[in-house]
Formats: sequence, C-alpha cells, structure tokens
Amino acid sequence: MINVTVWNENRHEQNNPVVREVYPEGIHGAISSFLQEEGYNTKTAILDEPEHGLTDAVLEETDVLIWWGHLAHNEVDDVVVKKVQKRVLDGMGLIVLHSGHFSKIFKTLMGTSCDLKWREADEKERLWVVAPSHPIVEGIGEYIELEKEEMYGENFDIPAPEELIFTSWFEGGEVFRSGCTYTRGNGKVFYFRPGHETYPTYYNKDIQRVIVNAVKWAQPVQRNLPVYGNAKPLEKIAVKVN
Amino acid sequence: MINVTVWNENRHEQNNPVVREVYPEGIHGAISSFLQEEGYNTKTAILDEPEHGLTDAVLEETDVLIWWGHLAHNEVDDVVVKKVQKRVLDGMGLIVLHSGHFSKIFKTLMGTSCDLKWREADEKERLWVVAPSHPIVEGIGEYIELEKEEMYGENFDIPAPEELIFTSWFEGGEVFRSGCTYTRGNGKVFYFRPGHETYPTYYNKDIQRVIVNAVKWAQPVQRNLPVYGNAKPLEKIAVKVN
Amino acid sequence: MINVTVWNENRHEQNNPVVREVYPEGIHGAISSFLQEEGYNTKTAILDEPEHGLTDAVLEETDVLIWWGHLAHNEVDDVVVKKVQKRVLDGMGLIVLHSGHFSKIFKTLMGTSCDLKWREADEKERLWVVAPSHPIVEGIGEYIELEKEEMYGENFDIPAPEELIFTSWFEGGEVFRSGCTYTRGNGKVFYFRPGHETYPTYYNKDIQRVIVNAVKWAQPVQRNLPVYGNAKPLEKIAVKVN
Amino acid sequence: MINVTVWNENRHEQNNPVVREVYPEGIHGAISSFLQEEGYNTKTAILDEPEHGLTDAVLEETDVLIWWGHLAHNEVDDVVVKKVQKRVLDGMGLIVLHSGHFSKIFKTLMGTSCDLKWREADEKERLWVVAPSHPIVEGIGEYIELEKEEMYGENFDIPAPEELIFTSWFEGGEVFRSGCTYTRGNGKVFYFRPGHETYPTYYNKDIQRVIVNAVKWAQPVQRNLPVYGNAKPLEKIAVKVN
Repeated sequence: MINVTVWNENRHEQNNPVVREVYPEGIHGAISSFLQEEGYNTKTAILDEPEHGLTDAVLEETDVLIWWGHLAHNEVDDVVVKKVQKRVLDGMGLIVLHSGHFSKIFKTLMGTSCDLKWREADEKERLWVVAPSHPIVEGIGEYIELEKEEMYGENFDIPAPEELIFTSWFEGGEVFRSGCTYTRGNGKVFYFRPGHETYPTYYNKDIQRVIVNAVKWAQPVQRNLPVYGNAKPLEKIAVKVN
Repeated sequence: MINVTVWNENRHEQNNPVVREVYPEGIHGAISSFLQEEGYNTKTAILDEPEHGLTDAVLEETDVLIWWGHLAHNEVDDVVVKKVQKRVLDGMGLIVLHSGHFSKIFKTLMGTSCDLKWREADEKERLWVVAPSHPIVEGIGEYIELEKEEMYGENFDIPAPEELIFTSWFEGGEVFRSGCTYTRGNGKVFYFRPGHETYPTYYNKDIQRVIVNAVKWAQPVQRNLPVYGNAKPLEKIAVKVN
Repeated sequence: MINVTVWNENRHEQNNPVVREVYPEGIHGAISSFLQEEGYNTKTAILDEPEHGLTDAVLEETDVLIWWGHLAHNEVDDVVVKKVQKRVLDGMGLIVLHSGHFSKIFKTLMGTSCDLKWREADEKERLWVVAPSHPIVEGIGEYIELEKEEMYGENFDIPAPEELIFTSWFEGGEVFRSGCTYTRGNGKVFYFRPGHETYPTYYNKDIQRVIVNAVKWAQPVQRNLPVYGNAKPLEKIAVKVN
Repeated sequence: MINVTVWNENRHEQNNPVVREVYPEGIHGAISSFLQEEGYNTKTAILDEPEHGLTDAVLEETDVLIWWGHLAHNEVDDVVVKKVQKRVLDGMGLIVLHSGHFSKIFKTLMGTSCDLKWREADEKERLWVVAPSHPIVEGIGEYIELEKEEMYGENFDIPAPEELIFTSWFEGGEVFRSGCTYTRGNGKVFYFRPGHETYPTYYNKDIQRVIVNAVKWAQPVQRNLPVYGNAKPLEKIAVKVN
C-alpha cells in the first residue's frame, strides 16, 4: 500500500469561481479521488493548514508527495521546504505539477531558476511520448491531447532531465519538456506540466493514468540509507614511511 | 507473472570439471532456480539447442531474457541475434551478465566494441551502489562484497550508461562500471558484471537479489508500439504559395 | 586545423532537377563551402567513388566526418561501414544529417531502428534550443526557424540522447528531438535533423553555424587510446589460501 | 582570453604550518600560477576579503570561477552565494574542488546534501578516466595516480552526473565519482575531487592539466540569454468558441 499526500495551495479555488466550478473539491480533492480509486492510501494537505498540513508525522508517513501551487509560493515556510527536501533525500517520491515549477521545493531540488515562457490562450497541447519504455507511460498512446491548456514554452530553466518522458507541442509555436524525471538522494522526482487551474485537465483519463503510474514509479526503494562521515578502511592499507 | 528465459552458452560446464562442480545444473540452472523461487515463470535455453533454444515462439513469450556467454560468442547465429535485437526494440527486457559484454547481442545494441581489461587472480571485488534510489538496489546494502572474482577494469568501451547503478573496486587497483542500464526502443537493458564461471557468484544472496530486482525493472511496459512512416498532419497546415 | 570530410550520397542531385537547382554543387559542395570559409580543411566524398571515397587514407586523415544519405543506404558497403565505425570508436567525430538517420553507420552506432514519422508538406519547422550552455548553440538565438521543411516526428527510435540540444516544433502537430549528441568509444556523434534535399536549408546561416559549431565540438581529443585485454595488477594482491 | 577567478577559503594556510609549507602562496596562488602559464587571465579572491573578494564587478568579469573551501563554509555570506548562483545560471563556469563539495554554492546548485565518506590515511588514489572522448581528459592517460590523498568514498550524495569523467580507486577499499559535470542554466559546473590541503596535489602535472582543460570546457557560450515570462504566440491560434 503506497501512502500518497496530495498538497495543494488551494487559493484559486477560494478566489476564482471558474476554478471552484471546475474543481469543487479543490485540485487536491480531484487528484486524491482518482488515486484512491487505484488503491492508493491518500491524504490531502493545503497551504492554510498549520505547517501547511505537512507536519513531521505526515511527512514521515508519506511515500509520495504531490505538489500543486501557483499564487503563493512565497508563503510556504522555509522550514517546511527544508523538511520536504530532507524527506525526498531520504527516499520520499515527489511529483511536481504544472505551476509547481516555481515552488520553493522544486527550485531548491533543481538548483536553477525553473523559469519558462507561458501564455493563457486556450491552446491545444499535445504531449508526445519520447521514452516509450518508461513505466510512467504504461497504457498511454503516442501522445496525450488536451484541447485547451495554458502554454509553457522553452527555454525551461531546469537541469537536463535524467529521463525525458514527454515533450509538448503547442498550437502557438512552442515546445516544452513536459515530463521530466530526476533523482535526488534516495528519492525520485517527477515534474509533469499539465494542469492549469481553469481547465478540467485532472479529469482527463490519460493525465490521471500518468500520475497514477508516476506515484508507483516514485515510491521509495526499501533499503538502509547510506552512512556518511569518517570511515574506517575496509582494506589493510600498507604502512607508509614519510 | 513475468516470463524469464535464461540463456547460457553452457560450454564451460561441459569442458571444465571445476565449473561443473560449481554449477552442476549449469549457470542457467542456477539462475533459473532462484528466479523460480521468487515466483517468476522461468525457462532455459542453451547454445547447442536448435536456434540456440531461442525460437520465435520462445522469444515471443519471453518478457525478460538473461544472457551468459563467453567462449563461443561467434557461434551465435546472426539471424538469432537480429531476432533478439528486434524483440528488445519491441519491449523485451535483456539482462547481460559478466562475459556477455562481448556477446553479439550486447555489442549490436551498444554500437561500441564493449572491450575492457580483465585478470584472473582471485581478487576481492566490492560493488558500490551509486544509484541509491534505483529499484535494482532494493534490499542491497552500501556495497556487495565478493571474496574472489575475475577482475574487469576500465576503460569499459560502452556508451555512457543512462543510469550507473554499481561501480566495482578491485583489489589489484582497478575500478569498473559494473551495473549499467540502457533503453533501446521499447525495451530495457541491464548489464551486470559479476559471475565468472569458476566462482560460486550466482549463489550469493545479494547477487541473486540484484538479478531478481533487475528482472522486475526490465519487464515490458504495457502499451501499443509506436507507428512509423508517412504521417498525416494532425493540424491543419496553412496553404502556401511558392 | 580541423580536417573535415563531407560525405554525400549524391543521388538526388543526379536524378532530380529541383534538387540540382537548389544544390548545383551537390549537398556536399554546399556544406564543404561554408566549412571552408570558417577555416576548416575540407574534403568531399560520394557514394559512387571507389570505396565511396572513404579509403583508409581518407578516414585516417579525417577528424570529423559529415554524413548525408537517403535513397541508397543499402548500397553502402558493409566493409566501409565497419571502417567508419572503427574510426569513430578511435576518436573521429561524426555528424549525421537529416535522412542519414537511416544510414547503416548511424543505426550501427545507435543499436536501434532509428525509425521515425515523416511528411513532405512544406511545413514550418522551429528548432528550439533546450541546452543553452552547449557549445553547439553558440551564436544561436532561442530557436531557428525554417519556413519549409520535411516533417520528422516522434517517436524517433534512438537511444536517449546523452545531450538533447534542439527540439523541433512542426506546423502539422509533431515534435522531434532534432539535435542529439552521443559518445561512442573515443568519438563523438551529433545527429542534426534539418536538410531535406528540395529546400535550401544548408544555405541558412543558423543551420550553417550549428554545423560549424558541431565540427569544432566533435573534433578528436588528443590522448592515447585505452588499452584492453589481460592486465597485470597495479597493486600487490594478498596471497590467498583456497 | 578566458578570465578565471580562483577563490580560496585560505584558512588552513593561516592555521596549519604543514599546509603553509606545501602552499606558501596559498592554494589559490598555486592554482592561479599554473593557469597563468597556460595563458589564462587569472585573479584570486579569498574569504576574508570584503564580499569574500567576489564583488559584482569581479563576478561580472569572471568567465570561470574555481572554488576551494573547507573549514568555513558557513562563513560564506548567503548574499554572495546567491550572486554566484545567478552568475552560473547566466553562463559563468564553476569548478568546485575537493572539500568544496560541502560549500553552500555547490549544495545550492545540486539540491542535495553532497555528503560522502572520508578518511585521512595517506592512501593512494587512482583516478580512472571513464569518458575517453571528453575534452577535460585531453592529454591524460588511462588514470592519474596520486601517491597520497585523503579518501572520499561513495555514496556521494549528488544528482547523477550529466557526464562522469573520472572514478577514483582508493587503497582502503572505496570508489568515488571524482570528476562530474553538470549544466545549470547557461553555465557549466565541474566537480573535481583531488586536493587535500596537506598534500602537494595541485603541483601534479596531470591534475593541473585537468583543471586547465576544465576551465576551457567551462567557459561561457556566446549567445543571448533566454527570455522568460508572458509570450506572444508565434503562430496564429484558431479562435475558439467556449
């Protein structure tokens, strides 16, 4: 049983009736719902809860954390960011969605600005699979089509992905590396582009399937953590005369 | 249920009493045995069978193929090599062990000479994990120690691994990239160094665990194969006046 | 001084007046010309010459080989392919252009089918830079635009590029990994997509700049080749009692 | 002409007579000296200077920054760290040496703990080349041998290197990824392990050659920086009726 915590900023849902209509239970509610149907043990957490809902106990029990944020990245407490980073390095999986590219946690793990081009123009997005053997694309066709989405365009200021899974085509003339995996410490990170708050993207069956697959892929590997610091020699080192 | 075919050249076992004593059921028998205990559906195939035991029917039913060869790489029929390559590109996993680095199938998939340094001197090998988040090292400590093995040393003439999982230390002064993953087409490839025929390496519980994990990792992803060739436009292309 | 050999199949130029008009000196002539202007020492070679113009002497003197082929991949002698592969492994750079994706030498070095989608429909191509720190994009803007080109679309059946430099957007709805680097042995390989024979692509200043940069990047590193085979221990190995 | 700034903490040299004897001009002085002989335009900067010697003007003029620190990572001002990160993202090369693995700037760019095993026991280190085609190993043999060095051992908690150039063998039984490249934004990063303060490592001709090569490799690519933010469509997007 994989324990998933779905974190959402949950501000658009409060401020924007359009978003509330699309996601009456919040983006976290929508994502949590289809993950539960797949048999995952899910929990949600939002910005306005104490410690943003990410207490030590919650983080400790989380195998994979999903992150959606946009308006209020700066309101996320640096202490919580450090704790999440620590948990990723200790093995927790992290799936960063859409505008989460600019979250503190993603920028901290990447070391870059994570900046990009964007445009809100109801454009068609087509996410082409470029890693056909990857478990994240199980059950997915050659591409996923979204009739309307926000455009994100290159250059996307990220480290070269360890695995590039999807590349998006946009109607207006741009491309984007829209599915990217990284390893950080003992943990795995997946960035997945789609999911602008005004579109029903997280109800799309292919998008759901990718997130379901990504959770499975990102779950921690069971093994002892590495030991660091001053080490005894494993082999006999010849005595040296200086 | 994952279907594994364990292919072995099976010549050392015929020609060398030392090897026969270590592996009375052949290297293929030893590997097949611990894979069965893990619940995999296993089959074996050897060089001296018709079509080397790798008929179309066998290949078609194989999810993951394991390959051990050494003395007789040149006796492997090019037609069979082409078929195995095709199956890997279509999704079959391939695990190449030890002296299989010089097999036709591995060289064909890598595009390089796959040459290396070697020495038979009963040396200690220590395989250090350098990809702690990878499913192939689940249950494995910081390193695997083998009291005696053949040395393989750098330069190992392979393409840069997509993921480097293990790096070996040898008593005599060399290092070696001893666990390397690649993707080819819709299939996954794992090269794993240990397993010289005169040592009981494939009875080592850590080595077995790595191979068990690798089979799980290398199994095909369930999705339709990509379509190639002349394609209709997905979008309306503006008429152009030349 | 870098020695570049520009290899061209040179069949379209003979058979198709449109191509002859675009490239009166042949594609090899056009490429050779702008490389000379950059101060490289260039030579050309074509399919219909003895040994396809790639004698041992020519290969030995070549630092970087450029390859354009399309109609007659199968007419390229396997012996020449093996020699080119050997030279790449020994350090010669190789730049494969456009339909060269299906050449024997590229498929041999990649280990995959190198298949793709294609369409001839006078489409706009926009090659986006996704590796802004790479020397191959020196002097290049955020993208290169080609008013009309043949479309190549994903899935492109290649190993995951070691460095992905460009990704193409096409008017008809596809994307393509259009600038890819690999290392093979002591040599470097760059695949660069543009250059359909009926368009004046190789007169485009940005395309020329990329090829000029790629030649510089692909030149051999000056060092002794690695030594393979049976190796003496570098360290004293403890005597072991069996 | 490449402008190199060699930054050194310069504390061991003040506190430890052994180090002062090995590096009477400081580690920065020794490194600066051999870089000058190669024709680079060098400058030095140390922790105890105002702004650690890394003023806006200095950073702006620096093509490649070399970093050596150990005892006083925490004394490096976060404001300076941010500025250095910004300059790397804008194209400045960064070469991090030895105990600089734990510097704020390296950890910030990597996103991981950058922790490792270590031991001071006068061990032999042998750095094996595992990327024979890389310009950083030009003129270098199959390995570099250092008679005595501090041991650094795996697990090294870094993101998987984009290119792994060297792997070290240590007498006491460990291995280490000792030459690693990364790209971050428009800049390139090279981590190079050797150089414990009590050994004359930076006088070793091979070590000098690697650093000389790395500076050349890490120099900025000349092109305009990418533009981010709200973008106009490059193509005409069809009007959609909601």
